[in-house]
Amino acid sequence: MAEATTIEPTRDQLDALRWDDRGLITAIAQDADTGEVLMLAWMNAESLEMTLAEGRMVYWSRSRQELWRKGDTSGDRQFVREAYFDCDADALLFKVEQEGAGACHTGERSCFHRAFGR
Amino acid sequence: MAEATTIEPTRDQLDALRWDDRGLITAIAQDADTGEVLMLAWMNAESLEMTLAEGRMVYWSRSRQELWRKGDTSGDRQFVREAYFDCDADALLFKVEQEGAGACHTGERSCFHRAFGR
Repeated sequence: MAEATTIEPTRDQLDALRWDDRGLITAIAQDADTGEVLMLAWMNAESLEMTLAEGRMVYWSRSRQELWRKGDTSGDRQFVREAYFDCDADALLFKVEQEGAGACHTGERSCFHRAFGR
Repeated sequence: MAEATTIEPTRDQLDALRWDDRGLITAIAQDADTGEVLMLAWMNAESLEMTLAEGRMVYWSRSRQELWRKGDTSGDRQFVREAYFDCDADALLFKVEQEGAGACHTGERSCFHRAFGR
């Protein structure tokens, strides 16, 4: 049973982040158990704050221009186990526990299910 | 010993890709053996073409505005084992064989070596 874990970032960590000109940052979700990369989406400052506070992945939907609490509609919630930022602080990596069938709206476990050259 | 593998994308696959307004697409490099996410960077059409043809990761450096053949300077080349695109075709995932000490210019193996809340 997945449970939410709150992560408390330091002020220095939050201040270090580099948001793009739309106020967004890329976020990778990786299966904490298998290492499978599940999806790449975007966060704004509010969705990152919610993600760390609630321990559940909350993205910013660029197409709908709204907060996207992953799994609220589909049931396929993602619980955060660990959260990282990269060396130039413009990309995020979350190790998550994926609920349900998977991360992808197609029903596949990973959004990266199509391979070049096959 | 790492060896280059050429991947031949289909025309339909290349046509499906959705480049942003700068002509770029996000590219994740993941260690093919351990599953560790090594880095996130960007590609333009030319760097993707070179990556698939040469079997070596070639990025587009946004800061230098030039092609970035990963490892030409550092020696830490990345050889492509598998290449994927996601369900909405605006993000790429490469499973790579990482040469040398690692992917990060800091000397760390992964660019995602800083965790929130620690």
